[in-house]
Amino acid sequence: MSREIKSQNITYTEGAVKHEHRAEQNGHGAAILWFTGLSGAGKSTLAQAVEQKLFLMGCHTYILDGDNIRFGLNRDLGFSPEDRTENIRRIGEVAKLMMDAGTICLTAFISPYIADRQAAREITPEGKFIEVYTKCSLEECERRDPKGLYKKARAGEIPQFTGISAPYEAPENPELVVETDKHSIGECVDQVVAYLRERGVLPNGD
Amino acid sequence: MSREIKSQNITYTEGAVKHEHRAEQNGHGAAILWFTGLSGAGKSTLAQAVEQKLFLMGCHTYILDGDNIRFGLNRDLGFSPEDRTENIRRIGEVAKLMMDAGTICLTAFISPYIADRQAAREITPEGKFIEVYTKCSLEECERRDPKGLYKKARAGEIPQFTGISAPYEAPENPELVVETDKHSIGECVDQVVAYLRERGVLPNGD
Repeated sequence: MSREIKSQNITYTEGAVKHEHRAEQNGHGAAILWFTGLSGAGKSTLAQAVEQKLFLMGCHTYILDGDNIRFGLNRDLGFSPEDRTENIRRIGEVAKLMMDAGTICLTAFISPYIADRQAAREITPEGKFIEVYTKCSLEECERRDPKGLYKKARAGEIPQFTGISAPYEAPENPELVVETDKHSIGECVDQVVAYLRERGVLPNGD
Repeated sequence: MSREIKSQNITYTEGAVKHEHRAEQNGHGAAILWFTGLSGAGKSTLAQAVEQKLFLMGCHTYILDGDNIRFGLNRDLGFSPEDRTENIRRIGEVAKLMMDAGTICLTAFISPYIADRQAAREITPEGKFIEVYTKCSLEECERRDPKGLYKKARAGEIPQFTGISAPYEAPENPELVVETDKHSIGECVDQVVAYLRERGVLPNGD
């Protein structure tokens, strides 16, 4: 997928309402919390628990979820390497728009390729992209198998399944590593929220 | 572009934070204000003026703009009929996500085809899609020609230019018609805001 802009005769216009106005109105900063990890590692569960906590704190939040977005924006994409890349590219662009709108946008996708996550990071303003490596051993993910997908993948019913028949490239320098096979969801949520305070996305103390 | 979902092995999950929770927190409803009209009709100008007014009222707003989104999400698309359709399809999906996040999402695209706008309407929950026909005569748009595009199109330098060498299909039953060649931007803004009150997107009185 070319990164070149195909359109001609377009000009960049900036709206009268600026990004910083939104942060001021919201009382918190905007960011992308990019959860990455194997199927079953707990990305969606954790993203939902973090969202709930942030929402109860009065934050503006939204989750882009792998399973959900494929019914809409990316319904034309499958699971080939090219389609996975385009899938993540579009999600990165939408997350960026959500972030620009003042939202703390949580994305919960396997997003197995380093290059694709890097591309999403690169289009996002400096410091706004927070990669959360949701770490869990393959054995534990397969034991959990919440959607029965590993079983199907082992039976050869799902081609190119991450961790079984397709690679997962773990982050090399993620902002955060949460280990869902060693800590409870509650502990992982606290870890994420503490990091958001430290980074100034959330105001300190309350 | 097929509307069929290509992915298998996906399930729809709903986040713990519901759409209605967001509306309650925000103090206003969510909606898509879909501005459609010729180039130069004033869609972006009007969208920005409406956004500014809503933002000052404390609303959560965001503009998806034709010129801007083509640098990001839709940078792989051109201006052929197929690409225009895919352009609007993706924008409709993003607007829906923004709306689901509790935002009043304003879209400012020529969006010349009835079928494409209808598709965007159909994926949006009932009553949340507000089509704003930004009406202005071709003569007046061409006289304004803010980006010099009509001049180029007349000179044959831009193929498939809406109104000149490509069709614009006017809305048949838009929620709103604003006439920018008969009324000031301020008057048009008031018209949109009054409609949002009437529809209950905005609380009555202030």
